[in-house]
Parts: sequence; C-alpha cells; structure tokens
Amino acid sequence: MMETKKSLCSDIQKLIEVSTDEEIRVLKQVVTGLLEKRSGEYRTYIMSFLQSKTKYEGGDLVMTIPVHPILNNSVDIVHGGLTATLADTAMGTLVSENLRENQVPVTSEMKINYTAPGIGDHITCRASILHLGTKTAVTEAKIYNDIGTLVAVATGSFFIIERPQK
Amino acid sequence: MMETKKSLCSDIQKLIEVSTDEEIRVLKQVVTGLLEKRSGEYRTYIMSFLQSKTKYEGGDLVMTIPVHPILNNSVDIVHGGLTATLADTAMGTLVSENLRENQVPVTSEMKINYTAPGIGDHITCRASILHLGTKTAVTEAKIYNDIGTLVAVATGSFFIIERPQK
Amino acid sequence: MMETKKSLCSDIQKLIEVSTDEEIRVLKQVVTGLLEKRSGEYRTYIMSFLQSKTKYEGGDLVMTIPVHPILNNSVDIVHGGLTATLADTAMGTLVSENLRENQVPVTSEMKINYTAPGIGDHITCRASILHLGTKTAVTEAKIYNDIGTLVAVATGSFFIIERPQK
Amino acid sequence: MMETKKSLCSDIQKLIEVSTDEEIRVLKQVVTGLLEKRSGEYRTYIMSFLQSKTKYEGGDLVMTIPVHPILNNSVDIVHGGLTATLADTAMGTLVSENLRENQVPVTSEMKINYTAPGIGDHITCRASILHLGTKTAVTEAKIYNDIGTLVAVATGSFFIIERPQK
Repeated sequence: MMETKKSLCSDIQKLIEVSTDEEIRVLKQVVTGLLEKRSGEYRTYIMSFLQSKTKYEGGDLVMTIPVHPILNNSVDIVHGGLTATLADTAMGTLVSENLRENQVPVTSEMKINYTAPGIGDHITCRASILHLGTKTAVTEAKIYNDIGTLVAVATGSFFIIERPQK
Repeated sequence: MMETKKSLCSDIQKLIEVSTDEEIRVLKQVVTGLLEKRSGEYRTYIMSFLQSKTKYEGGDLVMTIPVHPILNNSVDIVHGGLTATLADTAMGTLVSENLRENQVPVTSEMKINYTAPGIGDHITCRASILHLGTKTAVTEAKIYNDIGTLVAVATGSFFIIERPQK
Repeated sequence: MMETKKSLCSDIQKLIEVSTDEEIRVLKQVVTGLLEKRSGEYRTYIMSFLQSKTKYEGGDLVMTIPVHPILNNSVDIVHGGLTATLADTAMGTLVSENLRENQVPVTSEMKINYTAPGIGDHITCRASILHLGTKTAVTEAKIYNDIGTLVAVATGSFFIIERPQK
Repeated sequence: MMETKKSLCSDIQKLIEVSTDEEIRVLKQVVTGLLEKRSGEYRTYIMSFLQSKTKYEGGDLVMTIPVHPILNNSVDIVHGGLTATLADTAMGTLVSENLRENQVPVTSEMKINYTAPGIGDHITCRASILHLGTKTAVTEAKIYNDIGTLVAVATGSFFIIERPQK
C-alpha cells in the first residue's frame, strides 16, 4: 500500500505539471469532494464530485450543484446522465427523509425530459413527493438553471425496503 | 496558476497520506481517467472516471464499465444515476455513429427501470436503435451484470441537430 | 348499406332485450357519445365514449370524465390505458391550443405513474405546459379522483408539425 | 329498466337511420364487443371494442387489433392512448399468466415512445417479461403495423398483489 501511495503521488505530480486550467479545476473538485465525503458531508463519491448543496423548503428538497467542467458532456453542457443523477439523488434523499430510521428507498424507475441546456452558474433541482405509501413512493423533480429556465423534469418511483445490515 | 498547482499538489499529498484503500482506488481511477481523456480516449470526464470500454456488435453498441467504489450509492451498489449515465452515453454514442459528420444527437428524454442491483465485476450496456428518422431517434438499452442478470432497461429519444460551431 | 343498417338494428334490439343494467349503461354512453361526436362536441370516438368535459384554468387545461363501467379494467377500477388516454388527450389538446392554426401536436412519448385506484364519481386531469419550443413541447398531467387524491401523474412530449392536408 | 331499454332502442334506431358508414362500423364493433364480452371472450369493455386477439409465442404474448375508425385520433391515425391501452393490456395479461391463481398484476407505471403512425390493416403488440420478482414485474412491449414497421415501444412495471375478494 505504501508503494501504491508513493506511485500515485508521483503520477499525480506529473499530471498536474502538464495540466490545463480545466484539468486542474476538475482535479481540485475531486480532491475537495473526497475530503468532504471523508468528513461525512457526502454519502457517495459522485455527489461529492458534483458538490451538491441541499436544503428543505416546505415538504420539498432543493439540491443545487455548480455548473463545472466535471459535469460536461461532449458538447460542453451538463451531461444528461448527471442531471439524471442529480434528480435521482434529490428524489431519493427526500423519500429517505420521510421514512422510518430502519427503512431506505431504492429507485425502481425514473424518467427525465430535457427542456433546455444545463449551462450558467449552477443548476437547482426541486424534488417533491407525489405519493408516499408503505411500500412505494412516487416523486417528481424539476431542474432549473440560474435564471429560472426549466432544464429538465423527472418523475421516479422508489421501493421502500428495510435497511440492509452492514 | 503556478501557485494553484503547487497548493493542489500539497493538498493531494496530504490527502493520500491519510487515505483509506478505497479512497486510493477512487483517486487512481480519476487520475487514470484524466490521462486517458487527455489522450483522446474519452470525450467527457465522467465517462473517463467510469472507465467505459466500447465495441460494436451487429448494429448494436456494447459499453462495459468495471464496478468500482467510485460508482457506489449510499448502500454500496452502483448508483442508479450512473447506470442512467451509462445508458444515456451508450444510446447517444450509437445514434451519433449513425449520423452524418456534421450532426449530433441531443438526448430529449430517457426512462430507466432498475431490475437488479449493479454488483459484481462489471456491468455491460447493450444499446440498440429502434427508430432513426431525419430529426429524431428512439433507442433502447439493456444493462446486465457479469453473470448476465438484467440490471436495468432504458428507452430514450434524441433530437438530431447540426453540430454546434466551437 | 340499407341491409347492414337493418341487420344492425335487429342485432342491437336482441342485445338490449337480454342486457344487464351495466351493459345498458355502456350502450347508452356509446350512443350519447356518437351523437355528440356527430354534433362536433368530440373529435374522436374514444373521447366521446369517455364523455370528457374540458375547461381552461390559467394556462392549464382541466379535463374531467365520469367514472363509468365503460372505463373499467378487469378488477373494476379505471383501466390504466384509459387514464393514459385521458392524460394524452388533455396534454395534446392543451399544446394544440397554444399552436398556430396550421400546426398540430403529435405525441412523441408519454410516461404515467399510477398512485391510487381510479374510483369514485369522476376523475379530473390537470395538464400544464412545461416547455413550448418551435418544434416540440413538454407537458405534465396530474389526475385526481373526486376527493382530490392523486390517481396518476404523467409527463409527455409532442412534436409540433404542419397540419396534414385532408 | 323496461322503459330505459325501450327508449334506448328507439334512440339507437334513430341514430342508425341517419348514420354515416363510419358510424355504422363503429356501432357494429361496439355491439360485437359487448356480445363477446358477455360470452367471456373479453374481460373489459375497452378491449372488446378494440377486438383484440391474443396468442402466446415462446414466453411472449402477441396481441393484435384491427385498425378501425373506433381507434382514430383527430388526425385519423390510431390514438396514442389506445396504443398505450393495447401495450398496458398485453403486458399486464402476460404478467398475469405468470402468476399464481390468487395473484393479480396492477400497473405501477408505463412509458411509451411512438415511432410511426398506427395505420394499415392491423397493429400487433409483442409483450415480453424482463424481470419477474415476487412483488413486482418489469415488462416491455413493441407494437408493429401490418408491414412490420415499429409503431411504438413501451416499458412498464407491475405490482403483484393478492386478488381482491369480490
């Protein structure tokens, strides 16, 4: 392991030396994310890379991520898969908040329509619960850019299961 | 910029010193991805982090990613949003292959059903074109784990647009 | 044709003689629908059978149908396919209202989640436009029963095309 | 009731006298459907009006309906909602066939993409099971016209519940 760490260190040093500004920004975001995940701020690597911030408004969950090169697809707008990841995470987190402690939501399906490019300073996802039963939940999420244009709309459903024992 | 690079270097060194094995694996995957994206192997950061490998079979596209901690959701299976990212990328890449050089597909919507946890050594996405018109395409993707169990099924549609000028 | 009409008349007479109350109700609804479609109240047979009533509220369209045996599935709640028909029609009609006279919307896709059984006196669909472009529209529809419980939620997208010449 | 029947009979007679050929065809299809539903051939009015024929091929269910004015939308192609009804019924019937006698599937959600107009002599829906668990099933359906062009593709999921007691 010692060796792995040393060789990784040296690989990264070489990488950084020749990096473009954009690559430096991506690497910085990853490192920030890893540190914050370690401190318990994020539960998944991917959300730590996305640097999501969460708040609750009424019964809704509002999750915001900065638009950052790390999110880009091949035509330099937010990758639709990451917009979907944001929606899935926001809806799942909201359902989770509404369950008993020993329960956990598992996404059963999600659909997302894209209505405008994800560009600007940040995108914001507002997730709402449409139906909460004992075994399933149905939710929706609307994602807006920083001037309030709708970027995407999603609906999803979740199975509610007992939390798996570690 | 010089300063940024130096401080990033020192941040990463400190991070690596205290990292768990899993964090080292995540960081290694990111670095590998960045280097390979730089060499043109990937067009997006996210797919470079996922380390996808692509091949064509008949008219289908088959995209495989190793199951890796970087993909995990909070209950340690592949994050549904990243499964969706895989499906979206596979379907979009396949459509792209079937267009004229100055055309590019833009996802208009996608739906995904999850049928089994994404665990094992790797997951494989097979994307197929169901309909290819002059302005839109409709595709499907089926994602399997390493023992052939269906993990997810997606359908998506794409607008076909002129490639934006850089 | 004369003969067809006579034989149809006699078939219907025999059918009515032995009909249950429910069958009579179904036949009455069909006849009412046919007469109202003929007078221009409906543009499709299926919506005339469903006896939909439409009004506009703000930018939304609100379409109500009475719950009636004609709608039932095999466990005597509203058939999910007909709930989908209601949602599709409400969303399409609303888009149509927002187009130029020579344009017409064509459904490109729709997804519907069912959240409660369609029972009671009537169900009401509220359709809203989420995005209206020059070539496509994205809409949502929420369907409630007569005590305000959400029965289903749908999102759909539409291509906007020139009205086909008759 | 006697009076209702008499007045319905006379309403229908008047309707038939002035009917167009198309209206006669619609009314005939309804009457045929009602008689066949009564004889147990159909379990719902709507499917009896659609005159669906079902067969099994391998593990799939193949359901065909004649293209008929009764199905038309306002631009004289098969109404998308009825295509969805066909898909929902085909997928649900197939799931039902794979359950124990005291179990019944309830649609939890469905998504459908339309890829070509429903025209020609008939449309045929092939439904397949993608995942069958103890509590849920995931299915797909592909709908073709009479020359084999894909008209629509759907995926759906079903809750498996105990059959409600009458």
